[in-house]
Amino acid sequence: MNHIGRSLLAEALGTALLLAVVIGSGIMAERLAGGNMAIALLANTLATVGGLYILIEVFGPVSGAHFNPAVSLVMAARGAMPRSLLAPYVVVQFAGAVLGAWLAHAMFDITILQLSTKARSGAGQWVAEAVATAGLVLVILRAPASRVAAMVACYIGAAYWFTASTSFANPAAAFGRMFTDTFAGIAPASVAAFVVAQLAGAGIGAAIHKALGLPRIAAGRPGAANRSLP
Amino acid sequence: MNHIGRSLLAEALGTALLLAVVIGSGIMAERLAGGNMAIALLANTLATVGGLYILIEVFGPVSGAHFNPAVSLVMAARGAMPRSLLAPYVVVQFAGAVLGAWLAHAMFDITILQLSTKARSGAGQWVAEAVATAGLVLVILRAPASRVAAMVACYIGAAYWFTASTSFANPAAAFGRMFTDTFAGIAPASVAAFVVAQLAGAGIGAAIHKALGLPRIAAGRPGAANRSLP
Amino acid sequence: MNHIGRSLLAEALGTALLLAVVIGSGIMAERLAGGNMAIALLANTLATVGGLYILIEVFGPVSGAHFNPAVSLVMAARGAMPRSLLAPYVVVQFAGAVLGAWLAHAMFDITILQLSTKARSGAGQWVAEAVATAGLVLVILRAPASRVAAMVACYIGAAYWFTASTSFANPAAAFGRMFTDTFAGIAPASVAAFVVAQLAGAGIGAAIHKALGLPRIAAGRPGAANRSLP
Amino acid sequence: MNHIGRSLLAEALGTALLLAVVIGSGIMAERLAGGNMAIALLANTLATVGGLYILIEVFGPVSGAHFNPAVSLVMAARGAMPRSLLAPYVVVQFAGAVLGAWLAHAMFDITILQLSTKARSGAGQWVAEAVATAGLVLVILRAPASRVAAMVACYIGAAYWFTASTSFANPAAAFGRMFTDTFAGIAPASVAAFVVAQLAGAGIGAAIHKALGLPRIAAGRPGAANRSLP
Repeated sequence: MNHIGRSLLAEALGTALLLAVVIGSGIMAERLAGGNMAIALLANTLATVGGLYILIEVFGPVSGAHFNPAVSLVMAARGAMPRSLLAPYVVVQFAGAVLGAWLAHAMFDITILQLSTKARSGAGQWVAEAVATAGLVLVILRAPASRVAAMVACYIGAAYWFTASTSFANPAAAFGRMFTDTFAGIAPASVAAFVVAQLAGAGIGAAIHKALGLPRIAAGRPGAANRSLP
Repeated sequence: MNHIGRSLLAEALGTALLLAVVIGSGIMAERLAGGNMAIALLANTLATVGGLYILIEVFGPVSGAHFNPAVSLVMAARGAMPRSLLAPYVVVQFAGAVLGAWLAHAMFDITILQLSTKARSGAGQWVAEAVATAGLVLVILRAPASRVAAMVACYIGAAYWFTASTSFANPAAAFGRMFTDTFAGIAPASVAAFVVAQLAGAGIGAAIHKALGLPRIAAGRPGAANRSLP
Repeated sequence: MNHIGRSLLAEALGTALLLAVVIGSGIMAERLAGGNMAIALLANTLATVGGLYILIEVFGPVSGAHFNPAVSLVMAARGAMPRSLLAPYVVVQFAGAVLGAWLAHAMFDITILQLSTKARSGAGQWVAEAVATAGLVLVILRAPASRVAAMVACYIGAAYWFTASTSFANPAAAFGRMFTDTFAGIAPASVAAFVVAQLAGAGIGAAIHKALGLPRIAAGRPGAANRSLP
Repeated sequence: MNHIGRSLLAEALGTALLLAVVIGSGIMAERLAGGNMAIALLANTLATVGGLYILIEVFGPVSGAHFNPAVSLVMAARGAMPRSLLAPYVVVQFAGAVLGAWLAHAMFDITILQLSTKARSGAGQWVAEAVATAGLVLVILRAPASRVAAMVACYIGAAYWFTASTSFANPAAAFGRMFTDTFAGIAPASVAAFVVAQLAGAGIGAAIHKALGLPRIAAGRPGAANRSLP
């Protein structure tokens, strides 16, 4: 397999495993929590933090470990990855997200094919998604390469709680979570507005990064995660 | 934008996001916890730890990531930042704190303008705030630059529980939390005594640091977070 | 004691302490949790994460800190440890696992000799064990030596929740947990299928590692944990 | 103040703050937990982990950050600190521990002078204390200096749960916790046996360290925490 193939494999696998972690731990947490949703979200959060940390460490040196079309879009716009890779990245991220949902269902012995019925909507949710994605992009653009995995994981852990939407912050995650009618799901009708808010947030994050000066790229060019751009 | 403008933007944004994390996660936690306040505070703590960690990492290289007038005061008194920057730092920290409260309210679809009705008062609370701030200043003054973000975050996480006041340790945080009638709020009448205790604590922390010898500055001079003072 | 003796001592002790942590914290958690199994598993998870992290840091430089026959098998197959050590490693891992279960029982003043009655079976559980072990092997093979302990610990913490089986991912752990009729136990009749799924998963993990390219060995050759293979 | 005076100040302060963290967070946790002791211990654990981490980072470069007579004894026995410092270290550790209990009481507005009524006794508890202290000594003796704070904190976090005694592992902590009739207390009549078990455990930990070979000292000689012994 050549370098591009390996990058696409890493994005597909990483996004699939990220969704399996988010959805699977949500199922486990809801089953065990006896109706206390704070305990369920706490378990879901800690599993996501741990899982996201190792997924970025493991796949970062291969593909940049975006797992997120909004991140890939920002990276391509900045010239931190070849623009010709943007479309393939996004395609495998969306495909991986759905496969991850199905993998979670297979592990928990529930129907593989599902659609969520959980509406997530309203101005507060959309502001939250914009804030969540702006923060994520800011963290990614400013993190030193040696800390980007820990920083992104800690950020998402905080954002599960401080944003009203529990911080999807990722169009591929929103897409994949549409295919599960469990704790982490989102009704198909709610997805489009989430994605719009996420893309707006990504732009805001990149703009704040620019205003703060001192550009530092942590992870962007596939296979070059440990090199800074000039 | 020049260097000073970027530092003030970083302090304003960082303080706003810190308050949004503290207040937003408090709202989410209280909504979900079903009345168990230990679970609510646990979630509030973990979100704050994660959020504070990344905020210091992200904004530290720009402004020193004080987000706290007591810290800026100590830094200015030690000559670790230009004294002419102290007043502007404090102003944007207070302003950012209020904006952060409002951002949390916007995300959770509740009334933007609120005043807390939660009295926090009494000798124990004041001793707690002095201890909390002394510890924070000591950690900041002695942490190596490469660990200051993790150390401050871990310290505040512990202090949420071991101090009776849940460790505000920050006059700007006390000010901003006045503007929310939610889990993290503090009644306006309780704020002044908290700030007095915090400033006393900051002095105690700096004195202990001096008594221990071996001065090491981790983060103080804006834009110079990774350099030690001679 | 020569180098090989020290390696075997480290594997035996480390595996025993790992099982004591997993089983002991399970007993404590179940006793205190008042029937809320999410809280019990959360405590069990955090204790395992902390314990596994320090066990790998402490014993890694001596033996590679496998504590897991599936990991030793992969390392031997890759030439990262002498194949003649595989059988002794596996023997002391199994023996250590049983001793660890007994140590937990001694600490909690319960009958030393027990057999679990908790059936863990079904396609979902087996898929989960294969996924869990594949992920573990992938993390171990790709982690930089300086981060392998933190990465493995975080991975297992996530896997306790996102896999339906709570991620044994270790034939020696499955064997040792057979000998405790407590929270972490597994009925003897369920063990063989778990081990088969784990070995299949280990092979899948190694294959994914190979497909991703850029082989990096973090810990494998006993006593050489900090050196990369050429 | 000379170097020895600063070391003793650091040990006294550090031990006092450690006890304030353990006892204070126990009070807060029990007050909020609504009777669920697993949630209370979880909060107590996380506060202790965060607090212990920063206390070792802050005071380690001054005094070695023992906060524990068993650790000081091992260090003196190994020649890693001057034996003439052992008695003064132990005295200030015991004094600091009591002051820390009183500080916690002051913050939580409860009677300063208390004696615990919580019996902690029996063979399981004593085995647990021996195991807990052996593990602590092993971790301290083998940790690289740059990781000793994180490793000790993670170890204690795990040991709160996997040992039946919640891991005091420290004669000064046992002494100080005698003076609080709250969550973390221990009845005076139970202390002597705990200390005997702890000292036995410390010896076992040092013996295992020796058997494993490759001696590495992380923190021992006051003021020399970052240097290895030859």
